[in-house]
Amino acid sequence: MLLKMSSLFLRTLREDPAEAEVASHKLLVRAGYIRRAAPGIYTWLPLGLAVKARVEQIVREEMSNAGAQEVFFPALLPREPFEVTGRWTEYGDNLFRLQDRKKADYLLAPTHEEMFTLLVKDLYSSYKDLPLTLFQIQNKYRDEARPRAGLLRGREFVMKDAYSFDVTHEGLVKSYQAQRDAYESIFTRLGLEYVIVKADAGAMGGSASEEFLSPSPIGEDTFVRSAGGYAANVEAVTISAPAASSIEGKPVAETKSTPGTTSIDAVVSFAQENLGFTDITAASTLKHIVLAVTDVNKKRSLVVVAIPGDREMEPKRAEIVFAGCDVEPAGDEDFAKHPELVKGYIGPVKDGKQFLGEKAESKIKYLVDPRVVVGSSWVAGANTKDNHTFNLVFGRDFDADGVADLAEIKAGDPAPDGSGPLELARGIEIGHVFQLGKKYAEALDLKVLDENGKLVTVTMGSYGVGVTRIIAVLAEANNDDKGLIWPEAVAPADIHVVAAGKEDEVYETAERLASELQAKGKSVLLDDRLKVSPGVKFSDAELLGIPKILIVGRGLATGEVDIWDRRSGERRSVKVELAVAELA
Amino acid sequence: MLLKMSSLFLRTLREDPAEAEVASHKLLVRAGYIRRAAPGIYTWLPLGLAVKARVEQIVREEMSNAGAQEVFFPALLPREPFEVTGRWTEYGDNLFRLQDRKKADYLLAPTHEEMFTLLVKDLYSSYKDLPLTLFQIQNKYRDEARPRAGLLRGREFVMKDAYSFDVTHEGLVKSYQAQRDAYESIFTRLGLEYVIVKADAGAMGGSASEEFLSPSPIGEDTFVRSAGGYAANVEAVTISAPAASSIEGKPVAETKSTPGTTSIDAVVSFAQENLGFTDITAASTLKHIVLAVTDVNKKRSLVVVAIPGDREMEPKRAEIVFAGCDVEPAGDEDFAKHPELVKGYIGPVKDGKQFLGEKAESKIKYLVDPRVVVGSSWVAGANTKDNHTFNLVFGRDFDADGVADLAEIKAGDPAPDGSGPLELARGIEIGHVFQLGKKYAEALDLKVLDENGKLVTVTMGSYGVGVTRIIAVLAEANNDDKGLIWPEAVAPADIHVVAAGKEDEVYETAERLASELQAKGKSVLLDDRLKVSPGVKFSDAELLGIPKILIVGRGLATGEVDIWDRRSGERRSVKVELAVAELA
Repeated sequence: MLLKMSSLFLRTLREDPAEAEVASHKLLVRAGYIRRAAPGIYTWLPLGLAVKARVEQIVREEMSNAGAQEVFFPALLPREPFEVTGRWTEYGDNLFRLQDRKKADYLLAPTHEEMFTLLVKDLYSSYKDLPLTLFQIQNKYRDEARPRAGLLRGREFVMKDAYSFDVTHEGLVKSYQAQRDAYESIFTRLGLEYVIVKADAGAMGGSASEEFLSPSPIGEDTFVRSAGGYAANVEAVTISAPAASSIEGKPVAETKSTPGTTSIDAVVSFAQENLGFTDITAASTLKHIVLAVTDVNKKRSLVVVAIPGDREMEPKRAEIVFAGCDVEPAGDEDFAKHPELVKGYIGPVKDGKQFLGEKAESKIKYLVDPRVVVGSSWVAGANTKDNHTFNLVFGRDFDADGVADLAEIKAGDPAPDGSGPLELARGIEIGHVFQLGKKYAEALDLKVLDENGKLVTVTMGSYGVGVTRIIAVLAEANNDDKGLIWPEAVAPADIHVVAAGKEDEVYETAERLASELQAKGKSVLLDDRLKVSPGVKFSDAELLGIPKILIVGRGLATGEVDIWDRRSGERRSVKVELAVAELA
Repeated sequence: MLLKMSSLFLRTLREDPAEAEVASHKLLVRAGYIRRAAPGIYTWLPLGLAVKARVEQIVREEMSNAGAQEVFFPALLPREPFEVTGRWTEYGDNLFRLQDRKKADYLLAPTHEEMFTLLVKDLYSSYKDLPLTLFQIQNKYRDEARPRAGLLRGREFVMKDAYSFDVTHEGLVKSYQAQRDAYESIFTRLGLEYVIVKADAGAMGGSASEEFLSPSPIGEDTFVRSAGGYAANVEAVTISAPAASSIEGKPVAETKSTPGTTSIDAVVSFAQENLGFTDITAASTLKHIVLAVTDVNKKRSLVVVAIPGDREMEPKRAEIVFAGCDVEPAGDEDFAKHPELVKGYIGPVKDGKQFLGEKAESKIKYLVDPRVVVGSSWVAGANTKDNHTFNLVFGRDFDADGVADLAEIKAGDPAPDGSGPLELARGIEIGHVFQLGKKYAEALDLKVLDENGKLVTVTMGSYGVGVTRIIAVLAEANNDDKGLIWPEAVAPADIHVVAAGKEDEVYETAERLASELQAKGKSVLLDDRLKVSPGVKFSDAELLGIPKILIVGRGLATGEVDIWDRRSGERRSVKVELAVAELA
């Protein structure tokens, strides 16, 4: 491929687009790779399309290596299958819905679980037909509330989505592993840093699930990892409870006046300074969070959760604890209905008796953090204004209705697998592998005959890679203050040849070298623009970010051209006649 | 590429799908190329996707040869640009419309004139940037009232759409010609028979426009052609009026009683049998059609059009005559309001005086066929029941408000360019080239500075090829009662290798030959299914329609394999060791 900038549909921009917040968005627009058509919806210009094609090709090759077969589904789909699985409703405002001229309901597909399930049901019927993994590379739609950051979170975007079909769970595990391996190959070939984290399955349903995150300070996902190799989404970390300890000999609980101490900090200071509890810290206290939980039957009830006072609640973890329900902090109205809950002084015990709990005085469900184990000792509100109780020992002084693991994870927390302290990082989701299990096959009745002639429900996996998002992640991870620096595997061209001068000889030589490079199988972008200064051409070359730049300019007088490495910045002269061999 | 049928996602079907009407639809479904997802919306299975990729690649190459650059637009677009050009409304029920979560209006694009115009406006500003031709290969949407015939008229379909941008009309003509030439190359490479016909521009606006039609008995478009090379859509044929003749000496007009002759046939028979006008035929009479025309201001008025009695009105031609208005035959209510119009006996003259016409007695607008020239003599109703007037000479006895060329074209009519008699045929539209002119550039204010520093409006062309429809047309034109017969350029594989036997040697040899063919650059489909009989494999091979079939079977005992030409049916034995060379 030889693209000539004298005719290429390209206009580089010196100014960042007004709406752009992150580097990849700014640079992809400024360098003429993409252009905004509507919020979260982009047009691909020639250079962007070249990058996209290369990424898609790598994905396609690795899918094929993993034995997956390519198909292509419509983006416009009928409502019915999504109604059956519940996703028509569950997706809420994120789904683009429409009606055709006959008022039949349609949607723009966010993913295609239902359609793949129905297709396999339509054509296959025996265990002999399985295992099977199908994939497509296709435009997806999601009506994001806040489309942001260019391609990172678009409303129309390209995904590779794959689905596996197996008769047995062992088969599913194998199909899952094949896709997981393929993802590792894809991201490695793309030169993308990634971590694989345990993930919560969210709206997709199912059980085992891992996310591929590319670490990035602008990532929307927080994850944790240990030096010993543990990695998980914050939603997916499970705290390993400390061992219970003996109750015997623990100091007795005592309620003290702690005036004006409605915050954890205030209690701790007061206890240290006025009560002589010098070893008390925020971690010694229990913070009591009152949540209003609305279940599927729309019944709203209060739940109090105790977590260590040095932590906040992590909303994403709370969502998992109360999966299927809506959770929010209790509001003024809730407190008005429950005057027994004294804000700032809530605790498990009142006047020496269990107060919180479904069977206790308040009748309010009471859950505690996994760290609250038998024998552990805590400071908590005494359920009367300006009073706290000290030395409250779990299993002696109070009890709970259950455990709720929804406190935030903090840097330094131990990894649950004992692989060392955790660090927190931010990442961008670039891939996701799920063991869906039988959820979709059951809903849509996908069964095959097994070896014994019995009908069995198929078990499925679903596997997604965000193709357009990957391009943004690559741009985000590969740039400097001058512009983009593409990895070789995805650059829109292998070599950028710049004719830097006014003489005919410069243009002729540049053109000749470009043709020779092309003949060697290299794709070339040739800057053959007349009346454009070398300075502007160099700036554009830096902005566009093709990894190797060949400059044909002044050096030609002494028979030399320059090879410029975009990433290292290294620039060196070589003899004209050696340039092609060196680059090819 | 080597596809093995033992694992390929494919199930051939023996029965035609219930909803299928035409051969291409039946065969593409039965052979496992496509599968219906919703009315007019299809899923592409692996073999279908392979054909689609090959067609797209040919289109892409020829676009590139013609100097067009590829971009990729969203399918989901905001309403505003389409509102500006009027297409939001004009497209009526054919447009899929939807709202996002903020209640902003969006549509699924049927074509992208507006977006290309805005993109060029966004990035370019000088005559130096032009000419420019951009294209995309992309999913399009059209909410057809009656999606039919599989891929021939889908609601989600793939189109290549290209747009050219020029400063001058001469430039546009050149860009148009380049696309037109590219289309000829595409269809020739695809082995598609086509005719280029003058077309009416329809809802796209603009002036010069040609359609590429593939002649087919199931085509929805009627076109005419002459042996001398004239070709046009029936809408686009203009009748060349015969020369006027002298009025002098023509017999005088006379009104005769013609009881019960409300049809042309009845008048002709009566005149011949009872009045002695033996040379009168249907072509000597004028049929007066009363139309109700509703203009843009919703004003409904009657228009009477006279056409030769041996012809019907062609509704598509009428639409062009009354472009911008709604036209329908006058109804009972219209006639009730105009008792002066005597059904079956309408004519231009009553009691020797002009009756029809805006300035005549009836005040009803009166238009005549181009064949009604000065000196021509006609039979027409006398505007009183049971009476007709004979020898009515135009220019002597009656006149008209204008000409309306809306009579049907009949086989044998002369081509307007004098290239001989016309024949009528049916065709399927596979491509369309338009000189849009300044319509979109004016509406969306796309201007550039010309050589003198003056702002000038850009002139545009638009060029479409129906990629998925082409696949249906190819399937329609290339099949027999056994199945599909793909042209080599688009077959899902070059060679279909069939292992026809039970012995290991058969499978080993088939596999080896397939690998060798693949090594020679051929794409191969290998039927390596165990426990499937040779008969079933041969039927499937015929159904799938790969042009060359290599059979490894019984002949192996004598060191031979069979090469089977799917199209000719010819089957001959060759030595195993020569098979690959012969096929590669």
